[in-house]
Amino acid sequence: MPQVTLGIDIGGTTTTMGFVDELGNILAENTMATLAKEHITMFLPRLYTQIEILQKSLPDDSPLVGIGIGVPNGNYFKGTVENPPNLQWGGVIPLANLLETQYKVPVALTNDANAAAVGEMIFGAGKGMKDFILVTLGTGLGSGIIVDGKLAYGYTGFAGEMGHLTVKHGGRLCGCGKRGCLETYVSVTGIRRTVSKLLADSMVSSSLRELSQNDLTGEMITQSALQGDSIAQEAFEYTGMILGQKLADVVALLSPQAIIMFGGLAHAKDLIFQPTLKYMEQNMFPIFKNTTKLLISELQDKNAGVLGASALIWERIKV
Amino acid sequence: MPQVTLGIDIGGTTTTMGFVDELGNILAENTMATLAKEHITMFLPRLYTQIEILQKSLPDDSPLVGIGIGVPNGNYFKGTVENPPNLQWGGVIPLANLLETQYKVPVALTNDANAAAVGEMIFGAGKGMKDFILVTLGTGLGSGIIVDGKLAYGYTGFAGEMGHLTVKHGGRLCGCGKRGCLETYVSVTGIRRTVSKLLADSMVSSSLRELSQNDLTGEMITQSALQGDSIAQEAFEYTGMILGQKLADVVALLSPQAIIMFGGLAHAKDLIFQPTLKYMEQNMFPIFKNTTKLLISELQDKNAGVLGASALIWERIKV
Repeated sequence: MPQVTLGIDIGGTTTTMGFVDELGNILAENTMATLAKEHITMFLPRLYTQIEILQKSLPDDSPLVGIGIGVPNGNYFKGTVENPPNLQWGGVIPLANLLETQYKVPVALTNDANAAAVGEMIFGAGKGMKDFILVTLGTGLGSGIIVDGKLAYGYTGFAGEMGHLTVKHGGRLCGCGKRGCLETYVSVTGIRRTVSKLLADSMVSSSLRELSQNDLTGEMITQSALQGDSIAQEAFEYTGMILGQKLADVVALLSPQAIIMFGGLAHAKDLIFQPTLKYMEQNMFPIFKNTTKLLISELQDKNAGVLGASALIWERIKV
Repeated sequence: MPQVTLGIDIGGTTTTMGFVDELGNILAENTMATLAKEHITMFLPRLYTQIEILQKSLPDDSPLVGIGIGVPNGNYFKGTVENPPNLQWGGVIPLANLLETQYKVPVALTNDANAAAVGEMIFGAGKGMKDFILVTLGTGLGSGIIVDGKLAYGYTGFAGEMGHLTVKHGGRLCGCGKRGCLETYVSVTGIRRTVSKLLADSMVSSSLRELSQNDLTGEMITQSALQGDSIAQEAFEYTGMILGQKLADVVALLSPQAIIMFGGLAHAKDLIFQPTLKYMEQNMFPIFKNTTKLLISELQDKNAGVLGASALIWERIKV
């Protein structure tokens, strides 16, 4: 009768859920469209139906000990989802309460990057570390900060918005309304913008001149760089420089044992890791030189969203 | 028989010590020259003699429950003082062990800004807060970061070096060897450098043109600004802009309930607080707007160094 938790990862496009045991094995998982324009009262019955289907595939005697949820704008303290820009659920939704009422188990909720950090601490590259930072490099840049073995939620419950550190005052416009945010430079979207800038500034020939900005993917930039395209290579060098400089600041504040990278751009491995590490160390306050490792997520090829969400519950049980 | 702790604040010039009760009353205090060029084996006997003198002024029955020390380059985890640039003690000194052997009580040690943050949490403006940051604006800029009710030490034990966040790559040379560090702009030394820059760039008349950079004090710049000197006023505006912009980054990472300002420049009150708050909010990630207060230290006019050091022990006892 192994205990199980249910991890739910709600994204703008897809919602994934899975039952997870305490070793991080996903015993059963399932996916449904999020349908972002749907009201929460339409979303929940669909979710419950999917969970019911999934539950039937588990052994009868696996007790569910809790539900963890990773969701944009999830407030850990209140268990609410507060006006996420990508979901038309309507206002402030007491999602944790709603699921607690339905399933009679504890429900924990936070945003996706925070959940991923807890997942990395319980099941991944952060195991055994008390101070580390997870950075997700996807469409945007998210982060979760672990301080002394616990996720830092801050006073509001929303700490860890590394993507919105300012790189350059008056710089690139960001979706948040500010200018010059880190994620406008360092993310899949950011490196695409950098490619456009480099194509504008230089005259070297590049296969990237054949593609529209919208058609360009992180994977294409990676492949071009590996094939020797100098624009693509310069784009990675620039992206790593901006990230490395900013990580040196983050280390000066928090002195983490590791910074763990996850998501789209992290797949580019050395192309992004080498310049990031170089510029991080170049800009490092002397006493912190060579004290913080750059690591790749160990959940990168697993269902990290589900594992991270479920880890919100395992973390409470294991303490 | 009230319990007492001994707080010791070791600075480059002066060492202050005091016996403190659990309400934060300093029952007896004493000061001696640090004599920075002296080896630790000369410093300690002098310290012990001063403590003995002080102890005689206490009621006989006040049990000493621990010693807290604030000292440059103090490593909380190891209890060591590691090559502080301002003290010629010689290498890595196991100061906590030495005092434990002498007095047979627990000894806790960290750097001065960290101790000040714990002091603010136990006795000052941070009382009742679980997430806040103390910023000391003196010769340099120091900080102590409280996350979820505890000081963040990080993996190395040295977290909280906010003074060495980079404001401007290739900017002003810093004592740490880097360029563009926050404390080269935001500190008493920093605002003096800014005055020199403004005197170079502009032609307006200013009483500050009568003074050498070395003679200039923070208090003089404050007085000039209050008397309408436009260079002095612009220097505060610029200093507050740089600090406010950087604090917006810090809030995006850690979402503290308050940032508490302490030390020389904080005495300038609104001259520094108003621009800092304005630029902090202007650069704030939207969900954090108006969530972090700027406060002035409540230990500003007390012996904050001694209270902070003693709080390292009270913090352990109160938990």
